[in-house]
Amino acid sequence: MKISETFIPTLREVPADAVIVSHQLMMRAAMIRKLANGLFAYLPLGLRSFRKVENIIREEMDAIGALEIKPPVVVPGEIWKESGRWETMGEGMLRVKNRLGNDFVVSPTAEEAFTALVRDELNSYRQLPLTLYQINTKYRDEIRPRYGVMRGREFTMKDAYSYHTDDESLDRTYQAMGRAYRRIFKRCGLTVIPVRADTGAMGGTGSEEFMVESEIGDNTLILCKDCDYAANVEKAACKADFVAPASLEAARTAAAATPPIEKIETPSVRTIEELCAFLKTDAKSFIKTLIYKALNVELDLSGAPGCSKLEKHAPAPDAPKTYPEAFFAVAIRGDLDVNETKLAATLKASEVMLASDVDVERLTGAPVGFAGPVGLTGLPVVADESVTAMTDGVTGALAKDLHYAHVAYGRDFTPWMVADVRTVKAGDRCVLCGGELYEKKGNELGHIFKLGYKYTKSMNVTYLDVDGKTQIPTMGCYGIGVDRTLASIIEEHHDQDGIVWPMSVAPYHVILVPIKYDGAVKETTDRIEAELARQGIEVLVDDRDERPGVKFKDADLIGIPLRVVIGEKNLPKVEVKRRKDKDNRLLEISEAITELVGMVKSELAELNS
Amino acid sequence: MKISETFIPTLREVPADAVIVSHQLMMRAAMIRKLANGLFAYLPLGLRSFRKVENIIREEMDAIGALEIKPPVVVPGEIWKESGRWETMGEGMLRVKNRLGNDFVVSPTAEEAFTALVRDELNSYRQLPLTLYQINTKYRDEIRPRYGVMRGREFTMKDAYSYHTDDESLDRTYQAMGRAYRRIFKRCGLTVIPVRADTGAMGGTGSEEFMVESEIGDNTLILCKDCDYAANVEKAACKADFVAPASLEAARTAAAATPPIEKIETPSVRTIEELCAFLKTDAKSFIKTLIYKALNVELDLSGAPGCSKLEKHAPAPDAPKTYPEAFFAVAIRGDLDVNETKLAATLKASEVMLASDVDVERLTGAPVGFAGPVGLTGLPVVADESVTAMTDGVTGALAKDLHYAHVAYGRDFTPWMVADVRTVKAGDRCVLCGGELYEKKGNELGHIFKLGYKYTKSMNVTYLDVDGKTQIPTMGCYGIGVDRTLASIIEEHHDQDGIVWPMSVAPYHVILVPIKYDGAVKETTDRIEAELARQGIEVLVDDRDERPGVKFKDADLIGIPLRVVIGEKNLPKVEVKRRKDKDNRLLEISEAITELVGMVKSELAELNS
Repeated sequence: MKISETFIPTLREVPADAVIVSHQLMMRAAMIRKLANGLFAYLPLGLRSFRKVENIIREEMDAIGALEIKPPVVVPGEIWKESGRWETMGEGMLRVKNRLGNDFVVSPTAEEAFTALVRDELNSYRQLPLTLYQINTKYRDEIRPRYGVMRGREFTMKDAYSYHTDDESLDRTYQAMGRAYRRIFKRCGLTVIPVRADTGAMGGTGSEEFMVESEIGDNTLILCKDCDYAANVEKAACKADFVAPASLEAARTAAAATPPIEKIETPSVRTIEELCAFLKTDAKSFIKTLIYKALNVELDLSGAPGCSKLEKHAPAPDAPKTYPEAFFAVAIRGDLDVNETKLAATLKASEVMLASDVDVERLTGAPVGFAGPVGLTGLPVVADESVTAMTDGVTGALAKDLHYAHVAYGRDFTPWMVADVRTVKAGDRCVLCGGELYEKKGNELGHIFKLGYKYTKSMNVTYLDVDGKTQIPTMGCYGIGVDRTLASIIEEHHDQDGIVWPMSVAPYHVILVPIKYDGAVKETTDRIEAELARQGIEVLVDDRDERPGVKFKDADLIGIPLRVVIGEKNLPKVEVKRRKDKDNRLLEISEAITELVGMVKSELAELNS
Repeated sequence: MKISETFIPTLREVPADAVIVSHQLMMRAAMIRKLANGLFAYLPLGLRSFRKVENIIREEMDAIGALEIKPPVVVPGEIWKESGRWETMGEGMLRVKNRLGNDFVVSPTAEEAFTALVRDELNSYRQLPLTLYQINTKYRDEIRPRYGVMRGREFTMKDAYSYHTDDESLDRTYQAMGRAYRRIFKRCGLTVIPVRADTGAMGGTGSEEFMVESEIGDNTLILCKDCDYAANVEKAACKADFVAPASLEAARTAAAATPPIEKIETPSVRTIEELCAFLKTDAKSFIKTLIYKALNVELDLSGAPGCSKLEKHAPAPDAPKTYPEAFFAVAIRGDLDVNETKLAATLKASEVMLASDVDVERLTGAPVGFAGPVGLTGLPVVADESVTAMTDGVTGALAKDLHYAHVAYGRDFTPWMVADVRTVKAGDRCVLCGGELYEKKGNELGHIFKLGYKYTKSMNVTYLDVDGKTQIPTMGCYGIGVDRTLASIIEEHHDQDGIVWPMSVAPYHVILVPIKYDGAVKETTDRIEAELARQGIEVLVDDRDERPGVKFKDADLIGIPLRVVIGEKNLPKVEVKRRKDKDNRLLEISEAITELVGMVKSELAELNS
């Protein structure tokens, strides 16, 4: 392809609104243009790389037997009401009424659409497992779209959904997806951090996120210096820095030497810091107790303190019943923080938030700052595991300016539930190997997830098993953001002059730069182009009437992996240079062609290996 | 691909809502499934053919130098307001407000998006001509979506837009597109009727529609039995079946022998038929006069009768100024009908409609049925060309129960404008060769159109010409409906047993049907599959444990062009049959493979030639 015959309007200047490298380079290299905030058009050069990423994903999906389909982008609101997500998806979902007043959704994801299609076709266990996918347009109405296509409103996602008769079958597909995802990212030249959510304490349904390190990442990752443990802080666990008792019995025994519980006056003392100073001790001795409000709680609360009047409701017909609102006291060692995502998961709640001052006072009988698990009967107490090792603690005494000292878990209070709800921090110890944990910011490129029966149950999907009995299939979902993957490749592969494409996703393999596209130089350029094309190499020719400096700068900017400079003074030799190297070599034309074809093939083989 | 490893849930029954063959067969062959009214999902088999149509279009676009880009599907309402189409697009355009209250549109077409992108990049005449295209999701909020993907709400369109410094450049691209479209449809195995709008009387900007004959077509085509004249009835012209005078002068001379105009009483006579009976003459002697209301009239009406008080307004800032509403009397020979599309084009109006009875009475001073061009001063008279040859006609006398007889054009009245506004019918004579015209119903698959300055002007697109002067580019647009093309292929290529795919768009080239996929039969099947795949042939293997009859029926239904039956009794020979033939041949395996590869390659070559 001649540059004069395509459309690559490169920019010298960095657009003012582009703050991250990939956004800057995608604009400057004329890969994309902005149509509106968060809405981008891929120009010819960008589209070539975009399609290559898409095709790598497609090949790996096909290789594990996933079947591509093409559902509509605009889908009926009805199916979102069936799943219950019409209510829970929030304002990020773009809803639209058609001329007849019916509700539609511009798909942000497609669990509902796929499940509705499968529901109509599924009869027998013999049709399962079934894995379907699409690579299609998605829309999320981001309030603040930014960072170019890294967080746009409209984007392209590969999303796959699998349906199974049992957990083992789901797990086989889930594992195959995990391997396919690793191959996809490797083929794209990306270093991803696979973050497993089911390593450690969280257990339950499986989930793995594929992250890339990024300063502007919206996730905090917890990584181990010594092993490959990696987790999203929202779910990270760590090795206990305490010795938990084996039972309540053991806890009481451990507290044998502790003086009896004692009420102490703590006038004008409300924060842990003030209390530490007042009692001349450290935060680790305190049992911090926070009151949380949780929404849509699925956990069974019958028999929990203060919950006798709560009733479960279904937010939508056919949606699972939950408690619309419930309060919990969460007790945790004073130097630790409660992780609200882990807490919500523990309570099977859609969301948790700190209770208002008014609610705290109503539920604990004391102003904020004096809650504690001892004698607290108005709501269930959830104790973080760290509390179970505390044999001589301090905590609020449910009255203004009063605390308890010498508090022992199991002796002075017994929580309704013990769980791991602590926020893991840099410096904590790895749950797998005990190594030191550290933090990184990351962006999620992909996510694989065992959904279980959430959608198949609410949307009434059934099949007949081998005995002719009606069964509900279990389900997994697997997503990759195509745009975000492309932008992340540039984040990882660039230098101060521009993009440095991995061969697999480069818009072209080779760029030919004739110093002046004329006479013998033109002839040589055309000959090399034809010969490379014949051998399946994708060639861009800078046939513009520009100064060599301009051409070199553009070649570096758009990042084609191999560059050949054809100048009169070197003929019949030409200059071959790899984008990532500093030096170039003067080669005879036939030698250059052999060399170029070899480099393209070996780099592709390396990435695909 | 093994049938057991893909997802082809064929149906025995025809779904109740599928009334046309392509819809029925696409459902039965498991190419598509309905998610909601007008919203379809392509299943794996359907997607394969869909992609092949897409790729044929892509190859032909690339071959003429059009450049593929990928703009968003959801676009800001702002650009539609700039072009003025926010107001004129009507309810078929799906509009949506995002969470910030901003207007967006789910693209029904993309003149605005492309023009907005080009506007930002265009500086110099050196960048022109520029032709960009996309193959992307579109949405039209059809009130009554039907006929499957033939008229769905969401669909995929290839839409290209070209920008030029001058008309000759536009014409070159327009002609190249016309040739590319012919190649595309030929490669798809489709018989299209290219319908030129600028053949004949309409003239002006060029436009060509690519139609397929269809009983459920929403267009009426006028075709010539003797030459290749083809036009949409909305724009069709015919050879005059009268001798028009060369001038008003000549008209008056022609009327020399006509008795003077005479007022006659016609009590209780209102229709042309009643008048014919009453006056014992035929409809050709009457000057039928209809009062029309026209909206958004661009034509200059200053000086036109009754229009002195009309003022032009712009429906939107920057939109061209038009008269919001104006009335016209249209006079036409009594046996002919007014073509409202031609009338609207003549008046440069967005829409024309018959005036209400109240307006007729107000403007003509008489009830409906007595309008005529003689003495009519309250509104401009538009005479169809047929009227200019009338030397002794009858027409309404602008008063109840009164008509004029012996009316002569040019002597008794002079219209404000003469134009061709008649509806051409079967039996009329070809404007090109005089042959007999006939009618067909047709569906539009593609359309190429010289837009001129409509969008570039309203959206302020400019470039600097060779002299450094600011200029506005001229523009063309070129669309093809991918889904509709696919459905039309099935409409043209099927029999009572199912689809009969042309090789180029068949989901697979060959289907292997082992009678029982086991033992030597399985071995032979696998060997043939591997060898065909090695030679680039796409093979589907019916490895299901079904009766041969079921397998044969499904193979016919899904329409794979070549079928090989492998049965124990014939081994080492196999049965090779073309879907479109009745007979099969028993061939040795190696012979069969050679034969199959040859047939695939020759059929592809034939379609691509």
